[in-house]
Amino acid sequence: MGGDGYLGWPTAMRFAARGHTVWVMDNYLRRQIALETGSEALTSNPNLPARAAIYQAQSGKSIHVVIGDCADYRAMAGVFAEFKPEAVIHYAEQPSAPFSMMNFGAARLTLNNNLNATFNVIYAVLEHAPDCHIIKLGTMGEYGVPNIDIEEGWLEVEHKGRKEKFLYPRQAGSLYHTTKVLDTDLLWFYVRTFGLRVTDLMQGPVYGLSTPEADMDERLIPNFHYDDIFGTVVNRFLAQAVAGIPLTVYGKGGQTRGYLNLLDTLQCVELAMSHPADKGQLRILNQFTQLFTVNELAEKVKRVGDHMGLNVKVEHIKNPRKEKEEHYYNAHHSGLKEMGLKPHLMTDEAVAGMLGRIAKYKDKIDAAKIMPRVRWA
Amino acid sequence: MGGDGYLGWPTAMRFAARGHTVWVMDNYLRRQIALETGSEALTSNPNLPARAAIYQAQSGKSIHVVIGDCADYRAMAGVFAEFKPEAVIHYAEQPSAPFSMMNFGAARLTLNNNLNATFNVIYAVLEHAPDCHIIKLGTMGEYGVPNIDIEEGWLEVEHKGRKEKFLYPRQAGSLYHTTKVLDTDLLWFYVRTFGLRVTDLMQGPVYGLSTPEADMDERLIPNFHYDDIFGTVVNRFLAQAVAGIPLTVYGKGGQTRGYLNLLDTLQCVELAMSHPADKGQLRILNQFTQLFTVNELAEKVKRVGDHMGLNVKVEHIKNPRKEKEEHYYNAHHSGLKEMGLKPHLMTDEAVAGMLGRIAKYKDKIDAAKIMPRVRWA
Repeated sequence: MGGDGYLGWPTAMRFAARGHTVWVMDNYLRRQIALETGSEALTSNPNLPARAAIYQAQSGKSIHVVIGDCADYRAMAGVFAEFKPEAVIHYAEQPSAPFSMMNFGAARLTLNNNLNATFNVIYAVLEHAPDCHIIKLGTMGEYGVPNIDIEEGWLEVEHKGRKEKFLYPRQAGSLYHTTKVLDTDLLWFYVRTFGLRVTDLMQGPVYGLSTPEADMDERLIPNFHYDDIFGTVVNRFLAQAVAGIPLTVYGKGGQTRGYLNLLDTLQCVELAMSHPADKGQLRILNQFTQLFTVNELAEKVKRVGDHMGLNVKVEHIKNPRKEKEEHYYNAHHSGLKEMGLKPHLMTDEAVAGMLGRIAKYKDKIDAAKIMPRVRWA
Repeated sequence: MGGDGYLGWPTAMRFAARGHTVWVMDNYLRRQIALETGSEALTSNPNLPARAAIYQAQSGKSIHVVIGDCADYRAMAGVFAEFKPEAVIHYAEQPSAPFSMMNFGAARLTLNNNLNATFNVIYAVLEHAPDCHIIKLGTMGEYGVPNIDIEEGWLEVEHKGRKEKFLYPRQAGSLYHTTKVLDTDLLWFYVRTFGLRVTDLMQGPVYGLSTPEADMDERLIPNFHYDDIFGTVVNRFLAQAVAGIPLTVYGKGGQTRGYLNLLDTLQCVELAMSHPADKGQLRILNQFTQLFTVNELAEKVKRVGDHMGLNVKVEHIKNPRKEKEEHYYNAHHSGLKEMGLKPHLMTDEAVAGMLGRIAKYKDKIDAAKIMPRVRWA
């Protein structure tokens, strides 16, 4: 679900490469929003049937494409009724925090699209594939930046001499992130009431544009966003370094988050699928490999970029978001490592590789897309 | 918002009686669902303009009626733009737990109606009345039945030597109750991001059908439901006692909840309004006056009913819900008492008064509406 996305398309290829029967469903909502907001990706990716045909020509593996709206129950239920999947990977959400904060229409679209897509997955599984393992993409942003350690989904509380284990309390920093909190609440209700099997992946910001499958043909590249609406911070910094635009650090830059390489997103989703959650289990995994502050990321990209002769500048700009710029952050993430995750860390070589790859598209980088256009308040 | 409801209509009259300028908005969604599910109220209440006219004839006070859908932003924004309210009381939600568990369509209607009504209130306030105090009806059911004390909205957690104060973790027992959890998450996000002023009332089940304003004319009676879909447990027991139908206790009957008289709902909402929350404050108040198990309620209704010659029977039936039937429950509720709440407790006289009032409608009680028709799983 959401097979046209930055993560959806590489994931579809990966599972097809492994020999699974793969269907993808998407209605190009992100492309439409990108068009409306002038936030198109670095490369103009072919549409899904074209990508599937290119991938099939390269690999001999097929990916079945359904163009449809995951927030439309009839469309989604039809897919489940026909395909009866063993697992569903639910990426089908409006993924931009700034877009969700832009205005009423964008906020309401985000709320309704994301909640209804999740609700439809739940009901399509209940009605058409009750043993199906739901793998849902959440976000580390659900937790916010609490003053205590972030545990892996759950928190044991001792209070006045008694104990209870709760879903870890969540308080996110944008409406987009808040819809993921609501998704988790909704999944948890239906898991404990109807015995669904669910893995909820609390993912940090992803970076990278290379996977073994995507690298088979330039046209199979994931849709790489470096803009203020859809671009995550690492990808934005990489594009800025290549284009000779100062890296834009929001505020003080002490914001710490857990990051991961796109290759590790694929690895984590594969691990989740090969170790399914039990019936009646909401398994929550914190999905990232390294913690960095924004300043540390900027310094790393600058150091590697300078070494490549890019002469990278770093600029602190007024923070368009409402967030803490210095805070305690200690997030645990042992579950996926115990399942066998072998992280691709953000080494200087990895950064250099990404800079080199993006440099091929240097002329396509549009500086007008980079500065923040949406302020939280 | 939701001015046609069991609480909405008595609230509208109460504030008009106090001299406030009162607008009510409703689209009769509950009446429509009651019709579709054969769950009509005990009396066929006049429509809102007719009720307002009757109340005006009795009291000389006017209530302005808007028939419109609170989940439709244009309709709600129009009200805010024109009226610019100082406070909004948001009751506009599909309030039946069994209906929300009936099937896909009922569940999705509940999710979308409730979330969008809340979202629209938030945005209508932001855009048209930024100082407006939002008084939102939540439910004690948001907390579920945790094994530790239920605090008033927030929980101080000490974890590995560090401390944080969180929104009290919530896990509700139906999709309806879960939508109220999502409402709270949504309100909390917009409160801390945009500085809204919000009071979120975690209310327990309400009973009663008499208020000074409603008692002025028989046609002003709140819509009293005793059915399995909209009837809360006390009102259902009272109707059963009057009609000579055994009181239906779901399962073991050890379920403990916090109850309150309709008169105290009005008092609490008045107290919340006369002590507004600050800008940027989500004030949460636990709104009930007494804790009872279902068995204790049944025994009380039986004792009083028997004394009135009703010969009341109590029957334990298979629990249609998925819930704990014996559990720890200690919920705190000091906030409203500190603001001056003077509870109307469920004395034998109070129960006798309600039984006497309902007895006037004995012939209208339809036994077919009482047994549970919706099972959770």
